[in-house]
Amino acid sequence: MTRSPRVVALGGGHGLAASLSALRHVTDHLTAVVTVADNGGSSGRLRRELGVLPPGDLRMALAALCRDDEWGRTWADVLQHRFTSDGGLHDHAVGNLLIVALWELLGEAVDGLDWVARLLGAEGRVLPMSAVPLDITARVLGVDPDHPGVISEIRGQAEVATTTGRVVDVALDPADPPACPEALVAVAEADWVVVGPGSWFTSVIPNLLVPALARALEQTSARRLVTLNLGEQKGETDGFSPETHLEVLAAHAPDLRIDVVLADVRHVPDPASLRRTAESLGAQLVIADIADTATTQFHHHPGKLAKVYGEIFE
Amino acid sequence: MTRSPRVVALGGGHGLAASLSALRHVTDHLTAVVTVADNGGSSGRLRRELGVLPPGDLRMALAALCRDDEWGRTWADVLQHRFTSDGGLHDHAVGNLLIVALWELLGEAVDGLDWVARLLGAEGRVLPMSAVPLDITARVLGVDPDHPGVISEIRGQAEVATTTGRVVDVALDPADPPACPEALVAVAEADWVVVGPGSWFTSVIPNLLVPALARALEQTSARRLVTLNLGEQKGETDGFSPETHLEVLAAHAPDLRIDVVLADVRHVPDPASLRRTAESLGAQLVIADIADTATTQFHHHPGKLAKVYGEIFE
Repeated sequence: MTRSPRVVALGGGHGLAASLSALRHVTDHLTAVVTVADNGGSSGRLRRELGVLPPGDLRMALAALCRDDEWGRTWADVLQHRFTSDGGLHDHAVGNLLIVALWELLGEAVDGLDWVARLLGAEGRVLPMSAVPLDITARVLGVDPDHPGVISEIRGQAEVATTTGRVVDVALDPADPPACPEALVAVAEADWVVVGPGSWFTSVIPNLLVPALARALEQTSARRLVTLNLGEQKGETDGFSPETHLEVLAAHAPDLRIDVVLADVRHVPDPASLRRTAESLGAQLVIADIADTATTQFHHHPGKLAKVYGEIFE
Repeated sequence: MTRSPRVVALGGGHGLAASLSALRHVTDHLTAVVTVADNGGSSGRLRRELGVLPPGDLRMALAALCRDDEWGRTWADVLQHRFTSDGGLHDHAVGNLLIVALWELLGEAVDGLDWVARLLGAEGRVLPMSAVPLDITARVLGVDPDHPGVISEIRGQAEVATTTGRVVDVALDPADPPACPEALVAVAEADWVVVGPGSWFTSVIPNLLVPALARALEQTSARRLVTLNLGEQKGETDGFSPETHLEVLAAHAPDLRIDVVLADVRHVPDPASLRRTAESLGAQLVIADIADTATTQFHHHPGKLAKVYGEIFE
């Protein structure tokens, strides 16, 4: 049997969770590096009320890695459970509260996440891209339909994700946050780094904007795989083709070499064009059947994705 | 080696936690039966916001039984951790939120508590006295100092615990709540039942007012031990002697036989009088060194209490 590859997956939200749900079947050495810029929902409220990192994307990644038995699945369900009420607990995810409590108690973001991972019997490790909470800012074209040529700045992950304008680029505030040291080590030691799928500007690209993490991604001997979304995302990538997704990613990380671009066979309008774009970035294009066709939502199918990742990693 | 006795401890709050901290060293078969009438603090807010059993006393009992290693102690610390903020999470204990989430997810109070016990590696089981939230009402003499002879009714555990009048008796609302079936089995199969210490009217006596639980306590072949408090409690038992504590307990449970009354050597003003009161109830009085003398607060010392319990159970 060959050694299990060391894999680092970067992103946030449901996209990263889908990525981890697939990758856990392909490797025993899996690390997630998670965007910590959320300012909406339960995470946003916790961040404002308690001054902590937004825990939601970290919680979702941990739940995706739970041990596949009654113990792991029950605690993952508890973490994902949200209260429903007319009061102050409404919509808080229990896992968010648990993660924050561990942070307050232990004083170290990574320690707290490792304890939740132990609780879940998680098959992998979940790290924040930075130990400080961040904001995403975006330059957006045509927010005001009466002035389609004007660029405005929008602040906040939730606001950028739902903008009616066209996102030109994103930045972090602060612009030079410290990277999580454990994430730098994981990237340096990786065999494969997987970027995406996920909310392109608000979950995927932010990882590439943490300076030390970007350098680690440029310098690692790991091969780099970008998994494209199954189409555009209402709001932040409205009207974006697969080629545009690749181009804006490259524009935010000009020194990042990409080895493989993975796209779903049903969601590439012009394969020859996408291949040219991938090759212009030095990457090989792999088009495969990776979408969940049982649903009308744009979701990757963990089993299909696992099979293709396994073949690519060989 | 003799078989470890099956012990059931009844009560609530810090008193029950102290009792469990001692009893866990004396037996491998320990069950706590906990008052669920709290309407104050984090528990009271959860009860009102989410319509659940007040979880606080259950949480405290579970934490007291955590496995004595890094895993058990860390999760107990997490359960006991309280948020501090200007917002809606202020003063909520994390364990309360976790217990409520398990209840919402699993639909059964005992199931949820058993899962928290498994998380803690708890050395014992924690059960609610009833699966429905209860209110305590009290008849109180002289709440209005201008009318010292007038009896008023006070409602709510928090209100009774802090009354300025003299509590005459307490009752439950509803008066005939269903007992927790697992608690009835534990009492029936017990070798020893331990009542107290704890807030006398609001934590200890309420267990004796659940009709089916009271019958089980009367009918069990277990021996019954009442551990007295280390003096009066500001508010609900202001000015109560040890004898009065025993008398009001007996008045609320007239058919309950008591086998042993345990009191601390430093907190019995008149041993002969207390012995007469104990014997009038059919009980033997044991006076021993069980107080924590390192603190000015009235706390039992778990180690001393464990030693004395061990001797009594022999």
